[in-house]
Amino acid sequence: MEHASLASHRAWLESVSALPAGFRVGAARFSFVPIEVDKPGTMTLTLIALDEPTDAFGAMFTNNAFPGAPVIVGRARLDEPLLSAIVVNNKISNVCAPGGVEASNAVCRAVAKELGVAETAVLPSSTGVIGWRLPVEAMVSAVPEAVRALQSTSVMPAAEGIVTTDLYPKVRRASVGAGSIVGIAKGAGMIEPNLATMLVYLLTDCDVPREALREALRDAVTPTFNAMSIDTDTSTSDTVAIVSSRRVPCDLQAFREALVRVCAELTADVVRNGEGVHHVIRVAVSGAPTRALALGVGKAIVGSPLFQCAICGNDPNVGRLVMAIGKHVGTFAPGLDLSRATIAMAGHTIFEGGAFRLSHETEGALVAHMREAELYASVAPADGLTFVPPVRFPSHERAVEIAVDLGAGSERATVLGSDRSHEYISENADYRS
Amino acid sequence: MEHASLASHRAWLESVSALPAGFRVGAARFSFVPIEVDKPGTMTLTLIALDEPTDAFGAMFTNNAFPGAPVIVGRARLDEPLLSAIVVNNKISNVCAPGGVEASNAVCRAVAKELGVAETAVLPSSTGVIGWRLPVEAMVSAVPEAVRALQSTSVMPAAEGIVTTDLYPKVRRASVGAGSIVGIAKGAGMIEPNLATMLVYLLTDCDVPREALREALRDAVTPTFNAMSIDTDTSTSDTVAIVSSRRVPCDLQAFREALVRVCAELTADVVRNGEGVHHVIRVAVSGAPTRALALGVGKAIVGSPLFQCAICGNDPNVGRLVMAIGKHVGTFAPGLDLSRATIAMAGHTIFEGGAFRLSHETEGALVAHMREAELYASVAPADGLTFVPPVRFPSHERAVEIAVDLGAGSERATVLGSDRSHEYISENADYRS
Repeated sequence: MEHASLASHRAWLESVSALPAGFRVGAARFSFVPIEVDKPGTMTLTLIALDEPTDAFGAMFTNNAFPGAPVIVGRARLDEPLLSAIVVNNKISNVCAPGGVEASNAVCRAVAKELGVAETAVLPSSTGVIGWRLPVEAMVSAVPEAVRALQSTSVMPAAEGIVTTDLYPKVRRASVGAGSIVGIAKGAGMIEPNLATMLVYLLTDCDVPREALREALRDAVTPTFNAMSIDTDTSTSDTVAIVSSRRVPCDLQAFREALVRVCAELTADVVRNGEGVHHVIRVAVSGAPTRALALGVGKAIVGSPLFQCAICGNDPNVGRLVMAIGKHVGTFAPGLDLSRATIAMAGHTIFEGGAFRLSHETEGALVAHMREAELYASVAPADGLTFVPPVRFPSHERAVEIAVDLGAGSERATVLGSDRSHEYISENADYRS
Repeated sequence: MEHASLASHRAWLESVSALPAGFRVGAARFSFVPIEVDKPGTMTLTLIALDEPTDAFGAMFTNNAFPGAPVIVGRARLDEPLLSAIVVNNKISNVCAPGGVEASNAVCRAVAKELGVAETAVLPSSTGVIGWRLPVEAMVSAVPEAVRALQSTSVMPAAEGIVTTDLYPKVRRASVGAGSIVGIAKGAGMIEPNLATMLVYLLTDCDVPREALREALRDAVTPTFNAMSIDTDTSTSDTVAIVSSRRVPCDLQAFREALVRVCAELTADVVRNGEGVHHVIRVAVSGAPTRALALGVGKAIVGSPLFQCAICGNDPNVGRLVMAIGKHVGTFAPGLDLSRATIAMAGHTIFEGGAFRLSHETEGALVAHMREAELYASVAPADGLTFVPPVRFPSHERAVEIAVDLGAGSERATVLGSDRSHEYISENADYRS
């Protein structure tokens, strides 16, 4: 898909944003001052509410060993019989902050009271600075306004409410019979980066019961959200939640396939709008003895700072590609026979039989491929130091295509990643204070 | 140590560059055109020659699964009875290039012939672009000039000859009784030695026999070169070689201690002169159940792009520090109890009992500490896009000091790493072509 302008991207987003039956969303913006620094900010409190409580919901969370308080609370919510609402705030992630769990509960309690539902039927999410305390009072005061804003037409207020640092909101949908799945995501942002938390909410009216819904989520997350990396840093807050209002009968298999499609598209959206991303990189690894090794090799390639920089420069430095593969295999599968490994980029075989097959022609083709996949090029900064992306919408959905066959098995994985640019450094070297 | 200028750094280098007895070094520079791209370059061929062949030599190499041809040849050399010389070229690393091993052997053969020694007594090393073929003819033609340049006074021609993107040569020495150890290193990028392209040559006249020398090398590499990371990328060419001319009797324990000291200082030099490095980061991890976890946590912290960017910006974003620890532990030791973990930065305890202890005062102290450890600040580039480090010498040897006690055991490790800057991106987004 290509978007020629911010207006055309916006029109497209609105065309996919109709809410499934049984949901309402609303948001409230308000000013606050963090306890830790004397610098006022603006926070958005986003509500996703169900018309009726549902037993069909699930969520997957970060495996970071220092999970945020909303993750701790969210894990416990999975054992509750019913879910009535999701409340999300940006700016502060409520991770390792003194009294964090109680703060999350206090926000849930305020939402529950205003909606007339059980406190334990409210799932909290937070994203933002790690270590700071939530401005609970200000958040509680904003709840009534968010409730008044609830409407059943469009998911856009939520897609925009959770987006603090992203360049644009991310919405994807799929139809399943008479029902639909609508997903929204918040990825690595741009203006106040380090909100590298991914939050994803998948709303559906398809009638899939709890266990089948959770199994479908697990199966959809593995090849999508769990097979991407922007900067190798696993957030303390990552959350993917799914909720069904169970309004529309559906075929489970069709639902499962549609869910994978929505998750895959949101995954690509998150990477494409990752901090400073000029190129999305898609690495298909095959011929591995295990899926874990296939995934690991793919992540090692997209996680290599040197390879990321080369792609950013449209430089076909494929030596770094081989380095990254060898780094991972040398550490995690030492002794594995790689003599039958082959590597292709943009459909050109560039490595086989233990050696490169490079030529002026191949180099030219690779450079052309990378230029075609570039989302934008850096623009010299106004202050000489601070790079700002010159676009606020995705101009296309192409990627740099890499295929690695390890020649040592039949397992495979496809990983999405990104290049590394001046915009990433500018965004992350001084965003917080 | 502080260096006020390039001249004072240079004078200091010369003061430590006297060669141990029994060694000569020389180098030759020449123009060449890579077979793969139509762009001429200048290569340096560096020779380190022994006055007499020695049986006391050893080397450790990368564990990357795609090792360079010189690494393949070098591993075989370890079984040879004698070593007479080391030949090193920069610009092309001879990794996965068609006919790579034969090319390395051809260069060794030319050196052997000119020196009148056995081909198998010459150890080859190469560093530079991966995948390209060595310009064997041009290299062979340069050998006589390199041999004519051999001299027994100073290691500097070798320290200067092996560099690629390094800003300055790296030399360290230690005395052991009447003898000495002199080490040189080439670093700068693709550095996470596991046994990184880091090339290190340690020359000594101390009489330590082969097996004791190799054991001393292994023991010295573990806490030094193998405990650092500039960009998490393990080179296909990393080599640390040690050679003794066995001229001076010595105490083995004193030698071993001196060797660790030289390796530790060279490790710090390599990190300090890593591509785009503004700050060296030293992470001391203790209280781990295993040394592997302590090392892993340390590497996860210095390898986190977000934490690296924060340090670059002198931004005390300690949330990213906790994120990095949790990322590693969550993946490699899930379930480990971190409730007793404490974190200190610049001597201030900033995290304990599962929560941060942050205040305006602490923030100020951390910022001051980072500014004090900064080697240089970015200067707005002349062309608006290409950042170039404004200094070509290390102004001091301070580091950002972090101490993590996991509170879950008694094992420990100290890791050296660096921040991530615009200079790294500029260096690597278009270095090769």
